[in-house]
Amino acid sequence: MEITPYFDKNKKDPVYSQLYSYIKREIESGRLSSGSRLPSIRQLSKYLKVSKNTIEAAYQQLIAEGYAESRPKSGIFVLPIDEVLKPKQPLTLESMNSKEQPKETFKYDFQYGDIDIPSFPMKNWRKYLNETLDALDYDGFNYGDKQGDAELRKQIALYLYRSRGVECRQEQIVITSGTQQSINLLIHLLCLRKEMIGFEDPGYDGVRSVFSYENCKIIPIPLQEDGIDIETLPIGTKAVYVTPSHQFPMGMILSIQKRKKLLNWAYQSGGYVIEDDYDGEFRYQGMPIPPLKALDEGEKVIYLGTFSKCFLPSARLSFIVLPPELAVKYKKGNQLYHQNVPSVIQKAASRFMASGEFERHIRKMRKIYHGKHRALLSSIEIYMGNKVEIIGEKAGLHILLKVKKRNDVELIEAAGLKGVKVYSASAYLLNNDVITEDATIMLGFGGLSVEDIESGVRLLHEAWFI
Amino acid sequence: MEITPYFDKNKKDPVYSQLYSYIKREIESGRLSSGSRLPSIRQLSKYLKVSKNTIEAAYQQLIAEGYAESRPKSGIFVLPIDEVLKPKQPLTLESMNSKEQPKETFKYDFQYGDIDIPSFPMKNWRKYLNETLDALDYDGFNYGDKQGDAELRKQIALYLYRSRGVECRQEQIVITSGTQQSINLLIHLLCLRKEMIGFEDPGYDGVRSVFSYENCKIIPIPLQEDGIDIETLPIGTKAVYVTPSHQFPMGMILSIQKRKKLLNWAYQSGGYVIEDDYDGEFRYQGMPIPPLKALDEGEKVIYLGTFSKCFLPSARLSFIVLPPELAVKYKKGNQLYHQNVPSVIQKAASRFMASGEFERHIRKMRKIYHGKHRALLSSIEIYMGNKVEIIGEKAGLHILLKVKKRNDVELIEAAGLKGVKVYSASAYLLNNDVITEDATIMLGFGGLSVEDIESGVRLLHEAWFI
Repeated sequence: MEITPYFDKNKKDPVYSQLYSYIKREIESGRLSSGSRLPSIRQLSKYLKVSKNTIEAAYQQLIAEGYAESRPKSGIFVLPIDEVLKPKQPLTLESMNSKEQPKETFKYDFQYGDIDIPSFPMKNWRKYLNETLDALDYDGFNYGDKQGDAELRKQIALYLYRSRGVECRQEQIVITSGTQQSINLLIHLLCLRKEMIGFEDPGYDGVRSVFSYENCKIIPIPLQEDGIDIETLPIGTKAVYVTPSHQFPMGMILSIQKRKKLLNWAYQSGGYVIEDDYDGEFRYQGMPIPPLKALDEGEKVIYLGTFSKCFLPSARLSFIVLPPELAVKYKKGNQLYHQNVPSVIQKAASRFMASGEFERHIRKMRKIYHGKHRALLSSIEIYMGNKVEIIGEKAGLHILLKVKKRNDVELIEAAGLKGVKVYSASAYLLNNDVITEDATIMLGFGGLSVEDIESGVRLLHEAWFI
Repeated sequence: MEITPYFDKNKKDPVYSQLYSYIKREIESGRLSSGSRLPSIRQLSKYLKVSKNTIEAAYQQLIAEGYAESRPKSGIFVLPIDEVLKPKQPLTLESMNSKEQPKETFKYDFQYGDIDIPSFPMKNWRKYLNETLDALDYDGFNYGDKQGDAELRKQIALYLYRSRGVECRQEQIVITSGTQQSINLLIHLLCLRKEMIGFEDPGYDGVRSVFSYENCKIIPIPLQEDGIDIETLPIGTKAVYVTPSHQFPMGMILSIQKRKKLLNWAYQSGGYVIEDDYDGEFRYQGMPIPPLKALDEGEKVIYLGTFSKCFLPSARLSFIVLPPELAVKYKKGNQLYHQNVPSVIQKAASRFMASGEFERHIRKMRKIYHGKHRALLSSIEIYMGNKVEIIGEKAGLHILLKVKKRNDVELIEAAGLKGVKVYSASAYLLNNDVITEDATIMLGFGGLSVEDIESGVRLLHEAWFI
C-alpha cells in the first residue's frame, strides 16, 4: 500500500483533511503517478484503521478538485497534472519597501480638504447611525437601489431648494461615493469619451484627471477676474466643468454676465454645463452665492454636490442632480454600476437631514470657518503685510498666497524646515511645468485651530522673509 | 428715487437680503437699466430709513455676483446682462413617470445576491461601528489612505492566509467599494483598454459590462465540465477573468489540471489571471476549494474578494490582492481615485475581523446556507423529481435548474402568476439572444427561509408542470 500518512490527532485539521492533503502531495510530487489506481475505500479504511466515511470524504475532495476521477466499476484513478513553469524571477515586495518614503510629520499642516474635527457632531451622527441600524429594512441589507436611497434623495432635494435655490425632484438625483465617481458616471451617461470638455484653468485636478483618463479632450479655459472666459470655447465642445460659486482654486465668483453667457452657450449648442458646487455653503460675507443651476430654466446644467466639505470627507457621500432628460436616460438602462455608498451611511445621512441637524451644522460650521478665515487673513496681514498678496473671495476653506519673485518649491522647502506644510497651487494648472515669475501657495485652513493658524503663519513669515 | 422696496419684517430673510433681491429683480427685468448709477449708500439709507450697513451689504452682494460694479470716486453702476435664450421645450419629468413600471411584489423571490437577514450579527456590527466612532482619528475624519485603511488590509491578509491559503502582505491589498470598482481599477492599472480579455461564457455580467464599457475586447471562453477551456485563448490575450472555486453561474470547480494550464499560460505569455473568489467560503461538502492564488508562485494571479456574500452586500466592501510588481506600480502614481469606502465601515470591519467574530460568522452562515441548500435540493427532488436537472456544485448561494424543451420566458411568467419570482440564466451568456432548446432558471436561495424555499418550489412545480 503506497498510502501511509501520519495522522496528528492534536491538529485542528480533521483526519479526512489530513489524508486528502497527504494524497494531494503524493500526486503533486509524482510519487503517486498519473493513471494509478487509489486503494478502494474498504481496503484503505482497514489499513489505516479509520472509518470508511473518512476515506470517502478525502477521496471526494480529491475528485472535486480534479486530482482523481471515479471510473464506474473500476475504481478511483489519479489524473495527470501539468508541471507549473515558474517564471524565473518572481518579484518580491522588497522593492516596494525601499521605495517607501518615511512619512514626514509637520507641526502645522495647511492641507486643503481637512475639516474641523472638534466641531463634528459625533453624538448626533452616532445617534442616527444607530437608529438606522435599528430600522434597517430589506434594502438596507442587500444591494439596494442603484440610484441611491430614495429617502436620502428626497432630503437632498428639499435641502437644495431651501438652501441653494435649486428646484429638483428626487428622481433627478443620483447618489455617488465622491465627485470623481460623479464625473465617471456622467462620462458614461453623456458619452463624453473623446469629446471636448471645457475646463477651468487652473482647476480641480482630481476631476481633470478623471476626464483625462477617460480620453476626454480637455480644453483649458483661462480665468478672468470674474471667472472663465467662455468666448474661447471651440465649436463642438460637449460640456463645460465649472465651479461658479467659488472657483477652485482661485476663489472668484462667476459673474452674472458670464453665468448668462454660459447658459446661452448651453442652450444654443446643446452642450451641458457641469456645475461643481463643492463648498457653496461657506461664504463669510453677505449671502451664499446662488448656484448656476438656480438660473437654469432650460435644464442644461448638471449640478454636483458633496458632503465632503460641509459634513464629513470620510463619509464618501456625493450626489448629482440630472436634468429630467438625463434622469430618464439614466433610468433606462444606463446604470452600469451598483450603488456603492453603504446603505447605513445613506440612511443615517437622510435622518440627519430630516431632523434639521444638517442645516444647523452647516450654520455652525460657517461661523467656525469664518473665524478661522479671519484669523488667517489677519495673521498674514500682521506678519507679512504687503510682502504677499491674498487671492480668493471671502469664502470656502482655503486661500491662495501670491509671493512675488519667489518660487513654490523654495517656499515649500523653507516652510517644511520650520515644521509647516504648505502646498503649491501649480498642480491645478493644466500645464504645470510652466515656470511662473511669482510663487502661488495654497493654504487650506479647515483642519487647523485659530491658534495653529496664527502660529503657522508666524513660522511661514520666519521661513520666507527672515 | 427708483428704488422703493417693500420690507417684510415678518420674513426670516434679513432686510439687506430683501433689498438685494429687490434690486436684482429690477436689474433682471431691465427696469434698472445697464449703466445707470445706483443711489449712494448715504442717500438710500436716508430714503429707506435703514442703516448704511444694510445698504452697503446689499450693494456688496450685488457687486460680488456681478450685477453692479463700484467705480472709484463716481459710485456704483448697473452692469449689462445678456438675456437668456431659453430652449423651446424644456423636458419635464412627466415623461419619466409614465415610463416607471409599478413595482411587482412576489411572495417568494429567488433573487441571487440576497443574504440571510435574520442571522446578520447586528449586535456585534453595531458594537464595532460604535467603538470605531469612539476611536476615530485624523484619518477616520478626512479622506484617508487611497489604498484603504492599513489595519483592515492587515486583517484581510491574515484572514486570507488562515482561511483561503493565500499568502500576501497588506501592502498588496487595495480596498474598493465593490468588485465592479476593483475591475475598473485593474483596467486602469494594467492598461487593459482595447486589449483582449478572456472571459468565462456564461459568466458574471456585472463584471463583463464594466470590461465592455471600458472598450476591452471580450473573448468568450466556453466552459467544459471542469471549467474554462483555455486552449482557445488567442495569442495576445492580456488577462483572463475566472471564478475557479465556484464558477458563476454554472457552479463547477476549475480542475487542478486546468488551474495549472492557466498558470502556465500566465507565466509563459506574461498575461494576468483575475480570480474572483466571490463565494469561496461557502462549500457544503468537504473543504472549501483553495483559490488559484494559493498555487501562484509566479505572482501572476490577481485575487478579488468581497464582503457582499459572506458578510453584508450593503457594506459595499471589496478588495484586490495585487502581485507585488503591480502593488509597486499602483503605489507609484497610479492612484486615480480617492478611497471611496467610508472610513467608519473600513475600521468597523477591521475590528470585526480582529475579534474573530468574522470567521465565526462565516462558519455559522455556512451551516445556515447548507441547510437552505439541502432544503432546496430535496424540495426539487420531492416536487419535480426527474422533470428537471440541477446544475451546480454543492456550494454557493444559488443553483441552476435545467428544464428540458421549455423556455425561460414562459417559465418565469408562469412562476410570476403564482407569486414566485425566478430569473433566467441566459443574461450571463455573452450572446444571450441565442435561442436554446432547454430553459435554464437561476434560483438564489440566500435570502429565503427553509420554509419559503419549500413553499416556493412547490408553487414552481404547480406553475410549470400542472
